Amino acid sequence: MTTATATGWATLGLRKSVRLVEVGLRDGLQAVPEPLRTEDKVELVRLLIAAGLTEIEAVSFAHPKVLPQLADAAEVMAAVPRTNGVRYRGLAPNLKGVQRAVECGLDEVVVVISADEEVSRRNQRRGTAELVAELPEIARIVSSAGARLVVAVACSFFAPARGPVPRSEREFVVDAAVDAGADGIYLACTSGQEHPGEVFAGVTDTLDRHPGLDLGVHLHNRNGFAPANALAAVAAGATWLEGSFAGLGGDLWFPGDPTVLGNAPMEDLVHLFDSLGITTGVDLTAYLQVVKRAVELTGIPSTSFVTRGGSRADLATASWPD
Amino acid sequence: MTTATATGWATLGLRKSVRLVEVGLRDGLQAVPEPLRTEDKVELVRLLIAAGLTEIEAVSFAHPKVLPQLADAAEVMAAVPRTNGVRYRGLAPNLKGVQRAVECGLDEVVVVISADEEVSRRNQRRGTAELVAELPEIARIVSSAGARLVVAVACSFFAPARGPVPRSEREFVVDAAVDAGADGIYLACTSGQEHPGEVFAGVTDTLDRHPGLDLGVHLHNRNGFAPANALAAVAAGATWLEGSFAGLGGDLWFPGDPTVLGNAPMEDLVHLFDSLGITTGVDLTAYLQVVKRAVELTGIPSTSFVTRGGSRADLATASWPD
Repeated sequence: MTTATATGWATLGLRKSVRLVEVGLRDGLQAVPEPLRTEDKVELVRLLIAAGLTEIEAVSFAHPKVLPQLADAAEVMAAVPRTNGVRYRGLAPNLKGVQRAVECGLDEVVVVISADEEVSRRNQRRGTAELVAELPEIARIVSSAGARLVVAVACSFFAPARGPVPRSEREFVVDAAVDAGADGIYLACTSGQEHPGEVFAGVTDTLDRHPGLDLGVHLHNRNGFAPANALAAVAAGATWLEGSFAGLGGDLWFPGDPTVLGNAPMEDLVHLFDSLGITTGVDLTAYLQVVKRAVELTGIPSTSFVTRGGSRADLATASWPD
Repeated sequence: MTTATATGWATLGLRKSVRLVEVGLRDGLQAVPEPLRTEDKVELVRLLIAAGLTEIEAVSFAHPKVLPQLADAAEVMAAVPRTNGVRYRGLAPNLKGVQRAVECGLDEVVVVISADEEVSRRNQRRGTAELVAELPEIARIVSSAGARLVVAVACSFFAPARGPVPRSEREFVVDAAVDAGADGIYLACTSGQEHPGEVFAGVTDTLDRHPGLDLGVHLHNRNGFAPANALAAVAAGATWLEGSFAGLGGDLWFPGDPTVLGNAPMEDLVHLFDSLGITTGVDLTAYLQVVKRAVELTGIPSTSFVTRGGSRADLATASWPD
């Protein structure tokens, strides 16, 4: 049965579909202290594909000493099924990482550049302008390998120990990424304290400057506003959203409980769009198997609501107690 | 410091202010197995007023055998400060309760009528039409006492064991309430599985039928969409929202963990509107004292995000670790 209200997406002025990009294997697992085995990661990838995910950030090429959890990038990529229509993404922190990424046969390489200078220096040990200057060379390498380049604009809206990030700083990175020929750009809600007003404004501004840009929003959820931010992003024209199974995720430079600053739980995003009648291609019931397995493997409970309170369909089909 | 983005409310087309109605002492405490002492409730009321709340649902006149947690309604009302500008609300389940409510000097009497017939019978042991038929007499009693009548339309959008509630069933109750002369009406997200599309549509429809109506939305949060629903409600023209300290709340006819189907945590609503630069009159820091005390008294942790991840202002003013 469907429990979507026919007027859902229409009344909010939303599109009928949105793409969901899974970042649990990278942004999620990098927050989990104990590395998972390569075969466990591959199992999660298989479950993700079975649930309908077609864009999967599977690996990172960060230095193994920095992120031992993700040291097996090449092994993961050698083992995952190269199913038709599934696009694998890897994060590359620098030129060397980009080279490794294309050698591993990634379909998509993500380069992260923080709009906030301080976060860039603390998180990547290099300034924003320095990272931006490398974009043309990165674009050449990625393009030569027949892969897609995605530029992630970290701290697009808000930065820790600072507050709102001026629009001009975000635009500096976005414009450079467009100039370098990025195939996609996403604005990241890195701090988890972003609100839907600034997400809406940021996506609108970006698309006004660069009409037709394939623009995503990467959601964290320190404040619980991620579902609202997701809708604001889609309403403003973003074409994809990023989340993680079980809401897994953390914060490298602001350490704490990894469940506090998690990524947006993907299962809640799927549930949100299901409720609204917006197509994602992801099956919630099958996705909950990913979540179940991820929780077993990591030992970290999901931060999502749907894993606790059930789905709209569950409640609609529940029986009254006698 | 302010961490609101200037463009927050404007970009979402929202008003500059919204009223927040506290229901923790009623809808929250009725889900807590162990009754609080009258003096503890009065302390919570004082803390609420100190935080800037001016509309407080403090008591219920349900039968003491059904809700022993709320049996001390008269004692609570005799003890709370009758501060200028603070409006006390009490819930009355029937004519007798309405009479008791006005005798206690309530400023506002709430009568709940479920749009969904099955929920009405299970929760109130009477059908929707039967409850609606009493509205004119209730309105006369409340009006004669100089109080305000608020009609709560339970299951305005979605009902357990059923799914979406047809618009005509909600309109039947809303129209009857308007005809009876209700001073305010709220649409209740009773199941906690409501989505922002239907909230937006429901508020819009109601105001189209009854322009100028003082219309609120009562938020539960089984699915985590409460902040999105809050914004959808305000965007559609609702003038007030209802939440509970610590997200306290439960479900009388669908029992389970009282933290699963909680009311929307008021502290997250305050944080949301603070972030957007929308005025509520409530001070977040002071409100967190209400939450702290409520958690001490009930032993039930808050379900809110801001109590775990801190506020936007906290993160903006945090210091980098050395």
